Amino acid sequence: MNEIANTPSPPYYAVIFTSQRTKGDEGYGNTAVRMLELAAQQHGYLGVESAREDVGITVSYWADLESIKAWKQEMEHLAAQKQGQDIWYAAYKVRIAKVERDYDWPAQT
Amino acid sequence: MNEIANTPSPPYYAVIFTSQRTKGDEGYGNTAVRMLELAAQQHGYLGVESAREDVGITVSYWADLESIKAWKQEMEHLAAQKQGQDIWYAAYKVRIAKVERDYDWPAQT
Repeated sequence: MNEIANTPSPPYYAVIFTSQRTKGDEGYGNTAVRMLELAAQQHGYLGVESAREDVGITVSYWADLESIKAWKQEMEHLAAQKQGQDIWYAAYKVRIAKVERDYDWPAQT
Repeated sequence: MNEIANTPSPPYYAVIFTSQRTKGDEGYGNTAVRMLELAAQQHGYLGVESAREDVGITVSYWADLESIKAWKQEMEHLAAQKQGQDIWYAAYKVRIAKVERDYDWPAQT
């Protein structure tokens, strides 16, 4: 998760998850790592990028909307979403976006 | 830049800028702040979110593709892009995406 995601040529989808944490870890760190592992096993997963300062931004990349919907409904992920609302997040916003164009620097050959 | 962006109802556009920095500041911090100020003055600008750990992720939101193109060509921004390639960035990737759907928690009324 600590690199620029090596996604295929567009079109593909991005889920932009922007969040503000509550104070304290309360199990957040372990679950965050587990969710990144679990997401990477899902059908249609293309990659993820994540960073946190005042807000956290996690962008996950997916082949299509069906894959995004299936991941949102995955059982262990649903439990984590519930804990997120109960404990870890003060607020978050999710945006589902279709990547139409991308480019790299240095240019990828 | 330190909050979840209060964007309007979709559709709108997101520019996902993911980067890896070189070492040292070398004037990066001041220019980054200036670029956020300047972006906010552009036509079609809707908001920005930014965080950096191992990678930096800055997502800016725009009303349409024309506004994104105009911002990319803005003179002071062009100079900053040049310095970015010469000095500040080891690598970056830019993705232009159409936000089709979004939701908030707690739900916005």
